[in-house]
Amino acid sequence: MSGNTFGKLFTVTTFGESHGPALGAIVDGCPPGLPLSEADLQRDLDRRRPGTSRHTTQRREPDRVRILSGVFEGVTTGTSIGLLIENTDQRSKDYSNIKDQFRPAHADYSYHHKYGRRDYRGGGRSSARETAMRVAAGAIAKQYLAAQGISVRGYMSQLGPITIDFKSWEAVAENAFFCPDPERVPELEAYMDQLRRDQDSVGAKISVVAEGLPPGLGEPVFDRLDAELAHGLMSINAVKGVEIGDGFAAVSQRGSEHRDEMTPEGFLSNHAGGVLGGISSGQPLIAHLALKPTSSITTPGRSIDVHGDPVEVVTKGRHDPCVGIRATPIAEAMMALTLMDHLLRHRAQNAEVRVETPVLR
Amino acid sequence: MSGNTFGKLFTVTTFGESHGPALGAIVDGCPPGLPLSEADLQRDLDRRRPGTSRHTTQRREPDRVRILSGVFEGVTTGTSIGLLIENTDQRSKDYSNIKDQFRPAHADYSYHHKYGRRDYRGGGRSSARETAMRVAAGAIAKQYLAAQGISVRGYMSQLGPITIDFKSWEAVAENAFFCPDPERVPELEAYMDQLRRDQDSVGAKISVVAEGLPPGLGEPVFDRLDAELAHGLMSINAVKGVEIGDGFAAVSQRGSEHRDEMTPEGFLSNHAGGVLGGISSGQPLIAHLALKPTSSITTPGRSIDVHGDPVEVVTKGRHDPCVGIRATPIAEAMMALTLMDHLLRHRAQNAEVRVETPVLR
Amino acid sequence: MSGNTFGKLFTVTTFGESHGPALGAIVDGCPPGLPLSEADLQRDLDRRRPGTSRHTTQRREPDRVRILSGVFEGVTTGTSIGLLIENTDQRSKDYSNIKDQFRPAHADYSYHHKYGRRDYRGGGRSSARETAMRVAAGAIAKQYLAAQGISVRGYMSQLGPITIDFKSWEAVAENAFFCPDPERVPELEAYMDQLRRDQDSVGAKISVVAEGLPPGLGEPVFDRLDAELAHGLMSINAVKGVEIGDGFAAVSQRGSEHRDEMTPEGFLSNHAGGVLGGISSGQPLIAHLALKPTSSITTPGRSIDVHGDPVEVVTKGRHDPCVGIRATPIAEAMMALTLMDHLLRHRAQNAEVRVETPVLR
Amino acid sequence: MSGNTFGKLFTVTTFGESHGPALGAIVDGCPPGLPLSEADLQRDLDRRRPGTSRHTTQRREPDRVRILSGVFEGVTTGTSIGLLIENTDQRSKDYSNIKDQFRPAHADYSYHHKYGRRDYRGGGRSSARETAMRVAAGAIAKQYLAAQGISVRGYMSQLGPITIDFKSWEAVAENAFFCPDPERVPELEAYMDQLRRDQDSVGAKISVVAEGLPPGLGEPVFDRLDAELAHGLMSINAVKGVEIGDGFAAVSQRGSEHRDEMTPEGFLSNHAGGVLGGISSGQPLIAHLALKPTSSITTPGRSIDVHGDPVEVVTKGRHDPCVGIRATPIAEAMMALTLMDHLLRHRAQNAEVRVETPVLR
Repeated sequence: MSGNTFGKLFTVTTFGESHGPALGAIVDGCPPGLPLSEADLQRDLDRRRPGTSRHTTQRREPDRVRILSGVFEGVTTGTSIGLLIENTDQRSKDYSNIKDQFRPAHADYSYHHKYGRRDYRGGGRSSARETAMRVAAGAIAKQYLAAQGISVRGYMSQLGPITIDFKSWEAVAENAFFCPDPERVPELEAYMDQLRRDQDSVGAKISVVAEGLPPGLGEPVFDRLDAELAHGLMSINAVKGVEIGDGFAAVSQRGSEHRDEMTPEGFLSNHAGGVLGGISSGQPLIAHLALKPTSSITTPGRSIDVHGDPVEVVTKGRHDPCVGIRATPIAEAMMALTLMDHLLRHRAQNAEVRVETPVLR
Repeated sequence: MSGNTFGKLFTVTTFGESHGPALGAIVDGCPPGLPLSEADLQRDLDRRRPGTSRHTTQRREPDRVRILSGVFEGVTTGTSIGLLIENTDQRSKDYSNIKDQFRPAHADYSYHHKYGRRDYRGGGRSSARETAMRVAAGAIAKQYLAAQGISVRGYMSQLGPITIDFKSWEAVAENAFFCPDPERVPELEAYMDQLRRDQDSVGAKISVVAEGLPPGLGEPVFDRLDAELAHGLMSINAVKGVEIGDGFAAVSQRGSEHRDEMTPEGFLSNHAGGVLGGISSGQPLIAHLALKPTSSITTPGRSIDVHGDPVEVVTKGRHDPCVGIRATPIAEAMMALTLMDHLLRHRAQNAEVRVETPVLR
Repeated sequence: MSGNTFGKLFTVTTFGESHGPALGAIVDGCPPGLPLSEADLQRDLDRRRPGTSRHTTQRREPDRVRILSGVFEGVTTGTSIGLLIENTDQRSKDYSNIKDQFRPAHADYSYHHKYGRRDYRGGGRSSARETAMRVAAGAIAKQYLAAQGISVRGYMSQLGPITIDFKSWEAVAENAFFCPDPERVPELEAYMDQLRRDQDSVGAKISVVAEGLPPGLGEPVFDRLDAELAHGLMSINAVKGVEIGDGFAAVSQRGSEHRDEMTPEGFLSNHAGGVLGGISSGQPLIAHLALKPTSSITTPGRSIDVHGDPVEVVTKGRHDPCVGIRATPIAEAMMALTLMDHLLRHRAQNAEVRVETPVLR
Repeated sequence: MSGNTFGKLFTVTTFGESHGPALGAIVDGCPPGLPLSEADLQRDLDRRRPGTSRHTTQRREPDRVRILSGVFEGVTTGTSIGLLIENTDQRSKDYSNIKDQFRPAHADYSYHHKYGRRDYRGGGRSSARETAMRVAAGAIAKQYLAAQGISVRGYMSQLGPITIDFKSWEAVAENAFFCPDPERVPELEAYMDQLRRDQDSVGAKISVVAEGLPPGLGEPVFDRLDAELAHGLMSINAVKGVEIGDGFAAVSQRGSEHRDEMTPEGFLSNHAGGVLGGISSGQPLIAHLALKPTSSITTPGRSIDVHGDPVEVVTKGRHDPCVGIRATPIAEAMMALTLMDHLLRHRAQNAEVRVETPVLR
């Protein structure tokens, strides 16, 4: 298929440009009988919404989502679910200065070579605004997974040079950074304020965890659960790296250290991050992703225009100085979509499997 | 589709267990007119083959591949290509001791819960032996890409705690580690010898680079080139992390540092690793992958059996003390397959695009 | 993937119920640079629109389509195209009488068993209203194909017992039946008027023809052009049969009669309907489809309710006495979508193929 | 994906040319725990095998199938199943006379234009020999369906001008024509003998029936059960038409006649052929397919060569005077594969659905 669809059985197909009339998605393959309302989707959309703190873009979008099909009398019918978000804050600004220029580290140059043209208004299709539909679709997956006792939650584990240890899920919900340690928040705010004064941006690291998974999700050999999760997470704007469990730390580990031993009481460790041979083990599924610093900064940068001539580019407008700050709900959505797809795929082939062996956690 | 197929237009579907009669693959979507012989595939298969040095498993497999269709009079016809490798070294050993046990860090436990049964001989389908067909299929992609001026090459950038700087591609071909620095080889050999004495294993980091790419490969928004590459690389046995370009280092970088500025003479840096907005920029495509230490070690480990009772597991047999040593050709294959698929996908939609803008390198 | 997507490279995914707030589609994979406006889509939508003559349902829907993405400055950008049609004529009628009953020959019974529930208002997702989005998406394919010199046109070849010979394409556009012979129109009108008096419905046969095709479209062995066309046409509501070329007449033909001989001046006949070995020959692609009579008639019929108890069903409301009358634009759309998909697929793999042999027509 | 794969969850990918070293297939997505042996596949392969009567090609192929993976200790493991059939009767004949000619009604001309080259030995990939792997894969689906109480059986309903009424399934197994009426067999034999004397060929009509289906199989709106079945059946070599239930007869039927009324005792008729709204109703699934006459006849025919010059073609070699005679097992296989795929797809999404309403037959 073309590139705007994610998943094989629980599929999400999206459309929409940053400054077009609307964003939309079609969620196909949702089981019937799931209670679902627009409010269920709005919750996560509000967590991703811009302009909620001084540390993110000041673009004002209510991001009100409408469910146009697939839900009848408050529950899903099993048919495709149409979602729509109208863009309201499309400033009619003058783009003549950038329409023929390639902003460094943006998709301008690669889109231009791929398509021969592009919607240059706010990045068009390459804008992170597209991720709003991922969050809306992911909320449907989360709703279904929750009913199965599966939770998907994320947090910021590093902001620029500042590493953050996990303290509690409660803390995550109480600050604009999705920071799991309330005592570190002032430090993060101070860092961000200085960053704005420096007219610069910085990267971030996000961690996502799914708990309550049954063992057995994932398809050997190419559609492993971790492989498809890596696909989903790496497809998020600005992501440059993905780790499962110990990730790159495993490079310098010994086998006797890395292997997660098992006892009747459960696993003794979780270096693997909940995946064995590409299939869920039933332990918490743990992934980390690296987001690069925002490319749009007001510090001038060297580039070329469509004619190949040198230009100096200064990116004005309303931008997140750290795209990672709003990435947590998006990462949760991609993990939820991946799990939902694999839950259905596993069920399709293995519905009749019965196992005596107890499930370890 | 099910999980044993990779790619959307240039597809590879594989079968085969570690100790079954044969491994096989079907490569579909190869353009017609490509000169192709079994020798072209054998070259890479020999680079991956076990038993070529004392640092890898002593299993003796010639890994002779046969082309059963899709090639006529020395060139591809455009129809599906059937590949077959007969297993020759399947020792008829007694598996009764492990058939009901779950080896720690192996797929035994997750496969058992997924399918309710498994081929326990040498890991069955979960064995890395499966990767032989990836290498064979990848060699077809490499052959086509090479004719387009695109090269795909890899090397070992870290062995356990030992980091290795890139020196030359020539060096890579001259040692059993795919080490790019000939002066470090003795150090690696000493480390491996000690590792064997310790009856332990270790992880490794592999780097893969594609050069000569046209800009424009990759499909927004979910099928980004880097996302599909991450999918392919993470699907390799034992891989726990994938980075594109600077990867996790980008977390602590500033935007003014990370962004790759452009001049008429070319890009001034390549922190992005050759991908902008998920689409190739024409710069070298750079990826790094982390491989965990081999799970099969002779040091006893705690586990349970199918009844949930505690057992002590000692993995005997012939195993690589570092699976990363033979992973380079496999990583190259997955990158080649990803690029081949996207080259065709890009061509399908954008064949008529003509761009005046010069291509930067 | 799930069932609401058609095509592999040029994909159409749809949503929407008969009496929901809106219908929508996402068209993915359209080449960039194609001039496209809402008016280009509206043309075919108007040909399918209900209430344009006394011989079709009196439901009044303007079927105004909006393009929400993928088109910038009047041409396609290569990104996904979002389409939306708001439902305006959703009568708030009382469905309590049919909500628990299964109308004979409708999808009520099969949907109920599949999903355990259904949107019973006007048939919900199973209503032919869904085909409006096929026509809108098909119009995009037609626009692209037309630029390549490929036309896709259809006509009614039989209405109930009345067979109609093809006379001219001009005639097709000048009557409500898509009848290619102007002299037969009065006969058709008289038949339809009597049908309404009989409170009954009838079937129809539609023929579709594509001209100007290049030879080579279609993928052996499962994705033959005729196989995918049969898939697309059979997926239209009420279709019970599909023929390519001579179709079922070929059963009693001799090989010496059926085979289309070739001369340097061209083919001497077209019994094959433009397909050889599942691949286009360059001759006109010809398909015929059989549509069953409308299931919704006011003559009472026997059925059961959700409890399994016997009921007598009388289908009220506004229905086409012959669904075939409005099926021509839908059949054209499915043929156009199939050709568009295969044009891109062929181009992906065979872009480099050059053939000296002249193309016959 | 490319064209050599059928199905979405239960997938079959095939390779192999008529005169290549071997034919093969990979069946992916088969549930684990299914008892399966090579003998189970051989049964249907033998029904399709050439040279079993004087009315089919005299090519002698044992068509011995080997299972190379996915089956362990006599049952399926859930991993991909590799199948292989070695070609044994590849006569080393001289093809120089036809290598540059296009046989009328064959795929020679369309393959040449598509790929720029072709394996001309016995038709290469376009040969019906490819269908052997469909039958082998279909036998796996049949085995699983049978365990669910679902049978898939076919018979010849017309040979050239001779229509045959269904009498009994027992009769079908007792003659070389799959004729359901033993009293008509002598007539068929006489017709075939005369046909050979005339050095000509003829078409046939095959009917396939599945019984014991649960209601609910099929995915709206594009992947309807009947649409995917039409895809599968039309993809069989020489098929020119497909009907579901009454098919083209429905064109002249009235709604009051066609609709299948329901009573608590069951359906009163089956004009629909077991499908309502594209979803199985639980009634017998009935399809009919039209096969064109064999293109290879010894009567000379006009054609051109690769240079566009006129030639007279005489097709020598060993050919079926009626390809329809051996098509019954192939049609059964495609219906079984379609049902298997949809059984898994339905299960994936609707595993939790519980319905009180009784199932009618």
